[in-house]
Amino acid sequence: MRIGELSVRTGVPVATIKYYVREGILAGGERTGYNQVSYGEEHVRRLRLVRALVETGSLPIAKVREILDKASDPERDVDSALGVVSRAMDKTREVAEPARDDLAEAYAIAERHGWKRALPQRERVKVLADVIGTLRLLGMDELIERADDYARAAQMVAETDIEMLSAQSDRDEILESMIIGTVLGDAFFSAMRRLAHIEVSGRRFKAPREARDDTDRE
Amino acid sequence: MRIGELSVRTGVPVATIKYYVREGILAGGERTGYNQVSYGEEHVRRLRLVRALVETGSLPIAKVREILDKASDPERDVDSALGVVSRAMDKTREVAEPARDDLAEAYAIAERHGWKRALPQRERVKVLADVIGTLRLLGMDELIERADDYARAAQMVAETDIEMLSAQSDRDEILESMIIGTVLGDAFFSAMRRLAHIEVSGRRFKAPREARDDTDRE
Repeated sequence: MRIGELSVRTGVPVATIKYYVREGILAGGERTGYNQVSYGEEHVRRLRLVRALVETGSLPIAKVREILDKASDPERDVDSALGVVSRAMDKTREVAEPARDDLAEAYAIAERHGWKRALPQRERVKVLADVIGTLRLLGMDELIERADDYARAAQMVAETDIEMLSAQSDRDEILESMIIGTVLGDAFFSAMRRLAHIEVSGRRFKAPREARDDTDRE
Repeated sequence: MRIGELSVRTGVPVATIKYYVREGILAGGERTGYNQVSYGEEHVRRLRLVRALVETGSLPIAKVREILDKASDPERDVDSALGVVSRAMDKTREVAEPARDDLAEAYAIAERHGWKRALPQRERVKVLADVIGTLRLLGMDELIERADDYARAAQMVAETDIEMLSAQSDRDEILESMIIGTVLGDAFFSAMRRLAHIEVSGRRFKAPREARDDTDRE
């Protein structure tokens, strides 16, 4: 297809497509004649992936390129490629060295929940320690105390995520699903958490004047 | 304290503090003499809250102001204020009208999990429908099929979130905790989900040459 059709199919403006090609994020099309370049389904797929990372994942373009480059390195086996890509997807902003207590708390959570393969990856544990530090600074120690509920939920979701990946056999497909799943999985969870908040919070904080009908209050 | 100390205590540059005061996001300090303004602990607290929303929540300043304005409206009871603030915190970017199937899928998930108070809030259900649409576009139908696992995890986390809020009695504190909890709770969960990924994925995709030592494979 021509670049115009590629643009219509993906909702990405022609100028942006050209920019992605220049930046090496999208492979160029096949030159089929004078001043004519043809794009295929793989371009549609790649463009949608890039847009999901940029829009839903709020990742900067440089980060997107880094992730896609790492995913396509054929030298790596799946586990190692998953690790490299997953590390590249971690927080974009630099995480400052966390306070010792916060780091200790993060390690304790990981240990309690059996994430022993994560323990050597200090950079990744630091991301959790950073959130803990922010919570503490904001006086939200109570949420830190409830970390185990979060960890159990995270474990549940991670198991379903990896089960889904395991059902696929093609290496590139596994990596692509992992990239999409990491970014969109957070958004998927967050959207549902907020719907659940409406329900649970409505039950709990219902204004007294509405509370007379308590039959549905459990 | 002087503005310089406020800056040191919160890590927010003096120029940024002045900008927040001009924008009405932070109350001005108390004028205590010629060319001298004094700030208190409430300023420290408010600044930390603003920074958490901006840095961890990636919310634009205009959104932060909207959220804080709504939270401080004394006319509203807690449930209604929670609702208003929670809606204000939803996705910053406009969510396009989702495809009918995606919206139906989102409603079906909410119904299956008993989130009946969320059903009338179409704008909020649309956020979930939007994620579903993106997943479908990217060929991730399998993740949509696993929505119930995500929903169960979201319900678990939402219950612990609201339980934490219920333990507080001051209206402003409840609202502040809710704002922080919504933004940082997503980050808290995401950091743990990724640590759990390392563990579960390592077990599943371990390269064959390492797989001989299977004792820890469960």
